[in-house]
Amino acid sequence: MDIITIIGLIAAAFTTVALLPQLIKIWKTKSTKDISNGMFMLFCGGVLLWLVYGVLRNDLAIILANSLAFIQALVILMFKAKYK
Amino acid sequence: MDIITIIGLIAAAFTTVALLPQLIKIWKTKSTKDISNGMFMLFCGGVLLWLVYGVLRNDLAIILANSLAFIQALVILMFKAKYK
Repeated sequence: MDIITIIGLIAAAFTTVALLPQLIKIWKTKSTKDISNGMFMLFCGGVLLWLVYGVLRNDLAIILANSLAFIQALVILMFKAKYK
Repeated sequence: MDIITIIGLIAAAFTTVALLPQLIKIWKTKSTKDISNGMFMLFCGGVLLWLVYGVLRNDLAIILANSLAFIQALVILMFKAKYK
């Protein structure tokens, strides 16, 4: 594995783990008033497209990051629908 | 420009535009109670690393997306500090 892929995987780890504190915060507070529905809908669409891009480029970092980000963003959207 | 780059640029447009509804929402409500500081700090670190990755891979879609995402995430963090 080359150094660029390793940087990509560290970047992927950061942006993937990034959604977790938000998920945990909503889980604890049951409040999503200040969270933008539009943001997480656009984000879900975007990471799906990045996933397609990663597959076409055969790029492991992009595939991993966006699969996990998609799942988390989807859970946040479901929380947003559940906890007004 | 090949079709994969075009898909990447569309993906980049989605994930870049994604942060705007959140920015506008905070701007209007002046409220960030439900927003996770940890999320946007990790996100800022992550997109900076993605930027390095994009430059090293000479990948226009990744460079554009992450430059703009970084600026917006930084503004959201500043809003978070300003509007408790």
